[in-house]
Amino acid sequence: MLNTNNKALSYLPRLCICLLFAFHGMAQSPTENLSKLGIVLPKPTSPIANYVKYVQSGNLVFLSGHGPSKADGTYIIGKLGTDLTVAQGAEAAKLTGINLLATLQSAVGDLNKVKRIVKVLGFVNGNNDFADQPKVMNGFSDLMVAVFGEKGKHARSAIGTNSLPNNMAVEIEMVVELF
Amino acid sequence: MLNTNNKALSYLPRLCICLLFAFHGMAQSPTENLSKLGIVLPKPTSPIANYVKYVQSGNLVFLSGHGPSKADGTYIIGKLGTDLTVAQGAEAAKLTGINLLATLQSAVGDLNKVKRIVKVLGFVNGNNDFADQPKVMNGFSDLMVAVFGEKGKHARSAIGTNSLPNNMAVEIEMVVELF
Amino acid sequence: MLNTNNKALSYLPRLCICLLFAFHGMAQSPTENLSKLGIVLPKPTSPIANYVKYVQSGNLVFLSGHGPSKADGTYIIGKLGTDLTVAQGAEAAKLTGINLLATLQSAVGDLNKVKRIVKVLGFVNGNNDFADQPKVMNGFSDLMVAVFGEKGKHARSAIGTNSLPNNMAVEIEMVVELF
Repeated sequence: MLNTNNKALSYLPRLCICLLFAFHGMAQSPTENLSKLGIVLPKPTSPIANYVKYVQSGNLVFLSGHGPSKADGTYIIGKLGTDLTVAQGAEAAKLTGINLLATLQSAVGDLNKVKRIVKVLGFVNGNNDFADQPKVMNGFSDLMVAVFGEKGKHARSAIGTNSLPNNMAVEIEMVVELF
Repeated sequence: MLNTNNKALSYLPRLCICLLFAFHGMAQSPTENLSKLGIVLPKPTSPIANYVKYVQSGNLVFLSGHGPSKADGTYIIGKLGTDLTVAQGAEAAKLTGINLLATLQSAVGDLNKVKRIVKVLGFVNGNNDFADQPKVMNGFSDLMVAVFGEKGKHARSAIGTNSLPNNMAVEIEMVVELF
Repeated sequence: MLNTNNKALSYLPRLCICLLFAFHGMAQSPTENLSKLGIVLPKPTSPIANYVKYVQSGNLVFLSGHGPSKADGTYIIGKLGTDLTVAQGAEAAKLTGINLLATLQSAVGDLNKVKRIVKVLGFVNGNNDFADQPKVMNGFSDLMVAVFGEKGKHARSAIGTNSLPNNMAVEIEMVVELF
């Protein structure tokens, strides 16, 4: 009886090696990936109003709109198409992503608990003619995939706006599913 | 014992007929309704960035912001109040709805699995004086109810914006509950 | 055997008094808090389109975008930075919150069923230079905490926009978790 499976079994070691290669990129933990990217998550700041930076409901975490705040408390400010290039906007979106991850880590303790970045809504401060919101938001999306691999691939809307709090360049909120 | 229910039972056939009439409009499947409306769902396109068109979490499907892209890959572009009439905007919202349904069908396989269109967020590209976002969004909402009946009635926000990706006329995202 | 717990038990009355003090602020029901604030919830209006004011999915209620409509059916209109002061905008956000609570109460019957105001997305109608969207939205957020206490503290995004339906000053949607 066992012999009937011998041929299939002989492929097993090769299959294992293939899977090892395939999953190599995913085997890193989000924290290891952040470290590899040279990113140190900042200490999350507290909102000075009657709202909070995140609320968990069931296994979903809803994160408040975050902006590109820097370590010194200032923001990357200005409007795309007028004050900032697409590359500068993408950098602001990446920084906003780092700030969101800092909040997320403080919320869940360990980024390994993240099952999926589910849904992202990003607003890009720009003039009426600016139409490259997706390229700006890619600065955020590329970071999430670099940190979480497939789990970082999210549904996304990229929207333009004529103004944001403190005239910051972008504001991004997201919904995250936990294991 | 059985006799005590005789009177109630005698109403049963009439009740059944009433229910048949009442549910007649809902008896059509979403796919049949699409066909009756003469709508052929397009092949969903893939986003060329590190995000995806939808993510399912539990029995909720979160769909990315979609736009009024046509079969040839071009978009209905322009700003309401400047370049497009309300009717043209509503047509763009309907086309965006068709594209969302194409993605939804590719996500769930069969639109009969839809329990409810839960929440819709629509952005209308317009000048500062444009104030008829709801009429534009009705092009989308009417489609959902024509396709899904009561299940298509959703919570909705209709928002104006000064710019959208590729200068497209509208961008709409939605949350859908599955059975 | 029972004596071994005597010392711990002796602290019980003091603990109870402490807890009574600690929870005093939360002991009020949302309805009592509304009454104390002198707020009478209006009769919710019906949207005149193919959408609804809320949809419940599981224990989450998704509420449509609401605006600062007054008892006579008119809205607080105008753009922040041009037509309205921050204080007037905050008043509009508070009125929008009252209208959302009216819809929420009609949805769930009793505001005591609210476990948490989870996520709020607010749009502030303003000119390109307006950057105080958070101060405007505080009119809404302060109301929620006054009514629900800790349960009213929500994740939030405050976004600027160049136009809203009927040129109303703000539009706010929210997600609420029920017990």
